[in-house]
Amino acid sequence: MSGTTVSARPPWRRAGCPQLGQGHEPEYIRGANATNRTDQNRRGCSDTPASSASVRPILQGRMDSPIMSAVPTASADRRSPRGVRLARTTMVQPDGRHVYLYGAFQPPPASYVAPLLTSGEWQQRWNPLRQEWVMYASGRQGRTFLPERAACPLCPSTEGHSTEIPASAYDAAVFENRFPAVRSGAPTGPLPPGAKPSAGVSEVVVYTDRHEGSFGTLPADRLDALVEVWADRCRELARRSDVRYVFIFENRGEAVGVTLHHPHGQIMGYPFVPPVPAIELAAASRHQRRTGTCLHCTLAADERRAKVRVILDQDGIVGYVPVSARWPYEVHVVPARHVGALPDSSSAVRRA
Amino acid sequence: MSGTTVSARPPWRRAGCPQLGQGHEPEYIRGANATNRTDQNRRGCSDTPASSASVRPILQGRMDSPIMSAVPTASADRRSPRGVRLARTTMVQPDGRHVYLYGAFQPPPASYVAPLLTSGEWQQRWNPLRQEWVMYASGRQGRTFLPERAACPLCPSTEGHSTEIPASAYDAAVFENRFPAVRSGAPTGPLPPGAKPSAGVSEVVVYTDRHEGSFGTLPADRLDALVEVWADRCRELARRSDVRYVFIFENRGEAVGVTLHHPHGQIMGYPFVPPVPAIELAAASRHQRRTGTCLHCTLAADERRAKVRVILDQDGIVGYVPVSARWPYEVHVVPARHVGALPDSSSAVRRA
Repeated sequence: MSGTTVSARPPWRRAGCPQLGQGHEPEYIRGANATNRTDQNRRGCSDTPASSASVRPILQGRMDSPIMSAVPTASADRRSPRGVRLARTTMVQPDGRHVYLYGAFQPPPASYVAPLLTSGEWQQRWNPLRQEWVMYASGRQGRTFLPERAACPLCPSTEGHSTEIPASAYDAAVFENRFPAVRSGAPTGPLPPGAKPSAGVSEVVVYTDRHEGSFGTLPADRLDALVEVWADRCRELARRSDVRYVFIFENRGEAVGVTLHHPHGQIMGYPFVPPVPAIELAAASRHQRRTGTCLHCTLAADERRAKVRVILDQDGIVGYVPVSARWPYEVHVVPARHVGALPDSSSAVRRA
Repeated sequence: MSGTTVSARPPWRRAGCPQLGQGHEPEYIRGANATNRTDQNRRGCSDTPASSASVRPILQGRMDSPIMSAVPTASADRRSPRGVRLARTTMVQPDGRHVYLYGAFQPPPASYVAPLLTSGEWQQRWNPLRQEWVMYASGRQGRTFLPERAACPLCPSTEGHSTEIPASAYDAAVFENRFPAVRSGAPTGPLPPGAKPSAGVSEVVVYTDRHEGSFGTLPADRLDALVEVWADRCRELARRSDVRYVFIFENRGEAVGVTLHHPHGQIMGYPFVPPVPAIELAAASRHQRRTGTCLHCTLAADERRAKVRVILDQDGIVGYVPVSARWPYEVHVVPARHVGALPDSSSAVRRA
């Protein structure tokens, strides 16, 4: 049903609880095996159980054979479960990485040669002081860093320039990162005490095939489609057994580490709920138990009542500067009516 | 006994537990009043109770009258409790801010005019999602930003250029920040729900009166003195009733927000234990209960045994890259023998 192949469970997932790597296991690593009460039975992206019939990926096509041995079929529109027209074509590169083309696209030139997943070692290591996992990915050292305009790996492929996208034109694309920060089934190298194999998935979301511009300059219909892409990825990744939390984000500007200028964002499917969302989930759960209401809804309702820090309130979306903002330009954007997660929102709210 | 005046307790400290600001108090703010189990009975900088006789500030002199109405007395060496020669002269600027001159110094020129504490409003606001306090300091917007070399506010004062340091020459100096991030007894302005007055102290540590250079280029005797300064500040701030955690740090480089190039660092005396140290303290406490040993000592001992990531091990000091480092150049520097806090270390270890 899903367009992705769920990775074989890494060895440490086969037992009832996570097993750590070989070697000496000091006492301070015990915390790594403890069940995290705050993320138990939770998926960061969705309140819907993974087995629920309401989780329906928007799947248009699929090619399991390497891209070099088959030409992608042309896309055709298909109505998504919630009534938004969004086609998706799934391809698998020779190195096993998935590429999802959303909307219309044109096949790549005949000379297309897919780039290869970086080599390296991936681990996650338990930090006994901060009580959190740290993800290691040695292969990221070699990632593409601010390439020349003509060498952009996110542009459409042309004769003589094969990019990450096996298409000579496309609307929007998602592909598994060639330099993933987290990755299930990856080589680990020797595991030190407190380490285990990496897990999860790292995806890149390309907003458009046009190199110039940004999220803010996309036309409205492209923005609509992009939100549908996010919802689709969120829905699909949340179903994976190696993903506990889906984080959709964009780093903007070289100061925060951008290495490519083509308009794009990223998605991390983490094998655990990271510390900050874990705290937020626990806080929301406590609030729910005490009051029977949703913490996010309560905060938004209070801001709408106070009318002091609300900067947007229309079409079912509220944007406000929280009273305890941590940054000068921090804005929280939430649906005015309660929604468990992005895929559960109505398409009208997603468009807004 | 101490050279600082402990600020009058702000109103919210007078009751048995913190009281929040006026106005509507939503349910989600309740967490702000809960006792934080991890920081109960703890002071981040010292294991020594504030009332213990072993807490002895190195006090050389004191001037409670404004600097403009009295010329500082010349410093004289005095042997500190642990046998290190370090003089300290305490002054109070007209706006009430303390200046501590360590070692020898020369009086300021007769024309000296002390700079004034910025105006503004200071608050701390409870973030109900992240379950943490956020400190607000509106006056910091106007702080000195990368001034010309000749206008450096950390250089010695000269005729026509009055700086933060009321001295025409000095060895090392500490002063209360003119643009404090946290500050007890400061004006608050109107308090929104979940906010209360700011509390704590923000200090600037000037390593030397020479504008050029950095921590790394200081001569050995200046480095020795600087560690004694840190220990003195730590000891003194930990005794304040409005300080729960003392954080000594230096931001290096404009990329991380440095606004002055003269070699200096900062000290924050927070009115709470911040989230990361709170997690680390809780982890260390659990480890202690389970094993009877210190977590930091255990980690250092394991690294010394493995001899893989140790980069320094001499004179009672161990420097190592932790197995679960979060940054490429992360190094932990710890004493080889257990020490509760910086002021409890031997002067030999501090010199090392």
